Amino acid sequence: MMKYTEMTARQRQAEYDAVLADYEKQKALGLKLNMARGKPSTEQLNMVMDMCSVLVKPEDFVSDGIDSRNYGNVDGLPAAKALFADILGCKPEQCFVGGNASLQLMYDAISKAYTHGLLHSEKPWSKLEKVKWLCPAPGYDRHFKVTQTFGAELITVPMTADGPDMDRVEELIQDPAVKGMWNVPKYSNPEGVVYSDETIRRIASMKPAAPDFMLMWDNAYCIHEFEGDFVPFADILSLCAEYGNADMVYEFASTSKVTFPGAGVSVMATSEANLAYLKPIINIQTIGYDKINQLRHVKYLKNKEHTLALMQRHAAILRPKFHTVLDALDREIAPLGIGTWKRPMGGYFVSYDAMPGTAKRALALCKEAGVTMTGAGATFPYGEDPRDSNIRIAPSLPPVEELQQAIAIFCICVKLAALEKLGV
Amino acid sequence: MMKYTEMTARQRQAEYDAVLADYEKQKALGLKLNMARGKPSTEQLNMVMDMCSVLVKPEDFVSDGIDSRNYGNVDGLPAAKALFADILGCKPEQCFVGGNASLQLMYDAISKAYTHGLLHSEKPWSKLEKVKWLCPAPGYDRHFKVTQTFGAELITVPMTADGPDMDRVEELIQDPAVKGMWNVPKYSNPEGVVYSDETIRRIASMKPAAPDFMLMWDNAYCIHEFEGDFVPFADILSLCAEYGNADMVYEFASTSKVTFPGAGVSVMATSEANLAYLKPIINIQTIGYDKINQLRHVKYLKNKEHTLALMQRHAAILRPKFHTVLDALDREIAPLGIGTWKRPMGGYFVSYDAMPGTAKRALALCKEAGVTMTGAGATFPYGEDPRDSNIRIAPSLPPVEELQQAIAIFCICVKLAALEKLGV
Repeated sequence: MMKYTEMTARQRQAEYDAVLADYEKQKALGLKLNMARGKPSTEQLNMVMDMCSVLVKPEDFVSDGIDSRNYGNVDGLPAAKALFADILGCKPEQCFVGGNASLQLMYDAISKAYTHGLLHSEKPWSKLEKVKWLCPAPGYDRHFKVTQTFGAELITVPMTADGPDMDRVEELIQDPAVKGMWNVPKYSNPEGVVYSDETIRRIASMKPAAPDFMLMWDNAYCIHEFEGDFVPFADILSLCAEYGNADMVYEFASTSKVTFPGAGVSVMATSEANLAYLKPIINIQTIGYDKINQLRHVKYLKNKEHTLALMQRHAAILRPKFHTVLDALDREIAPLGIGTWKRPMGGYFVSYDAMPGTAKRALALCKEAGVTMTGAGATFPYGEDPRDSNIRIAPSLPPVEELQQAIAIFCICVKLAALEKLGV
Repeated sequence: MMKYTEMTARQRQAEYDAVLADYEKQKALGLKLNMARGKPSTEQLNMVMDMCSVLVKPEDFVSDGIDSRNYGNVDGLPAAKALFADILGCKPEQCFVGGNASLQLMYDAISKAYTHGLLHSEKPWSKLEKVKWLCPAPGYDRHFKVTQTFGAELITVPMTADGPDMDRVEELIQDPAVKGMWNVPKYSNPEGVVYSDETIRRIASMKPAAPDFMLMWDNAYCIHEFEGDFVPFADILSLCAEYGNADMVYEFASTSKVTFPGAGVSVMATSEANLAYLKPIINIQTIGYDKINQLRHVKYLKNKEHTLALMQRHAAILRPKFHTVLDALDREIAPLGIGTWKRPMGGYFVSYDAMPGTAKRALALCKEAGVTMTGAGATFPYGEDPRDSNIRIAPSLPPVEELQQAIAIFCICVKLAALEKLGV
């Protein structure tokens, strides 16, 4: 095999004819495969079924004297706060334990900035002329859409191998209209980048012009290694406090990829001052989240150590899937010089950078052949990848055999798109 | 016994001395009793424990081909929509099934009116000079607080035996700044009033000046009779549609007082056009609510008929509690002419109107004697009862023996407050 750019026109035409024939063959199979979303597989769901039998008798439902079945305790069960504090390395009193979705806690925190203002806001953001928001990209589409839906101007910050480009961030936060920044600091979505210690310190010590700057720290993959052991990670709350930024940070996590994606438990960890400000506002929205499900998780997951052991069992299911994808890329794409990717050690994605100007076309070809992928551009603000290059691959849901078929088709499609671009 | 107003000063003094002696005796017991919130009792929670064992094997978790354990289906499981449509008398496609709290669905609907605007809004309400809101009172304090927290001006509408004073409502909605109205149409909180057919028709046929008027229809007690059989109730969605107001109404209900208060399932029922508008906005807030809990409810409650049978078992627990309260009032207070109340047939409250100017004092006395009640004024906008008269009694939580003590103390306190007012 040789690089496509080094081929003669005739060689490229021959390659195109061969790849196109492969494509037509695959398309004729009428497959329906999905690598679009970071959904755990049925095998993973079946693995945690014991969670459904930890609460049986009425007395099981009582925790620290609180009947989890009844109303109340808007910030969650103390035992659930303790569990999350153990996992995140923060304090239980910094934890607000919510419902089944950390995305909802993020959305609601930002929504309250708009309707009520935050602890250090001069006024609700809905009364401001302009709100700008930093979006390290490639990043998580659902993050970007949250700030977009409230009308914020999204500013792309390039991702590096160490996290966001901090020179750029430090320059941008001089603007008081810049009110916040998205982060997935460990195994970033989609690249699997782990922010370096230096980047994290630079983030924690930022001096944004906005007094109510929101450092959104979505620690979605805090214990989600699929290669090797658990990698300890800095507690962003104490780091921020160390630099006088205690009220700047809002950390999020959930058990969506630990127990059940649709029925996990979420947490927002932030300063006690922020919680003292936010709790009465949230208490108007709800009397409390589902404490039974919180207690179910406490009884099943027990503590950090026990949870990490469970994560190793998830890893055993996920690892061969990531290897399937990465091996195929190594074998099929690497020699052709038409794409680059990183080898993540955790998280739920492989980020593939196609030859610029070919991502949309490649994914259109995938779709036509029955392989659903996250839309091209989704990893950038407004869904617009300026280079039309980044593609997010989510290998977790399909069984390995289906994944082999899906990634084979994906490789064919990126080849075809590259050949079309180079001219055949 | 004779009416306090008909007593001579000397008689009143003697009565005061006797009641005060009773009060001191009760206070000395150091009781800790609670009639503050409409919380179901432990007996009711224990009665529905079978709900926790309806989902066991992995295949139990699949409903209409959807794995309830995984992500997705922002508007809920089809089976859950069908259950709520059966109970409310609307269509499944009008139901958005949410998480554990209908209050949250109400808050979020109004929050989105402020941040995004509704289907027929000219702009988000946060961009308006003024938003006004109609609050039939006495009413539910948590309702009033939702609209207050967003800065709406709350306008009190008097409640009558048939529901809100519709002459007043029809006049007030001529103002385009009046954007909505709270309602608990069946067994209203706190009076237990069931809106009459005529009132409901007048509401459904309203012509508010605001094109995006929100008729908030909190059908919290839709199947919550504690005396007698289920009372059929109009489907407000089809009634509104009949009068060309299909998009005006947002109905809410939940299983908080059917299964577990803290871990039930909630629903918002509204026009398909409203849902088509709101679903994509809500889908930015969350990927979906807890579908496992939705399915648990579907399997346990089955359908309306089966749910009504369960509600009769709740009624059997609640009935003696309401009788305890009402009997005490009949016996202790009625002959004295110092208070009035209604005899509700369903819901969770007894509404007591004390001699004007004595509610705060009576509740302060209760508190001192160890009986916690909903704060005086809570049933009015801004927590201010202009007559300082209405008191909400919640008999559901304490066992009957405790309730007997609590209501005895309550009677003593309203007597003392009245005697103080009349002069001793």
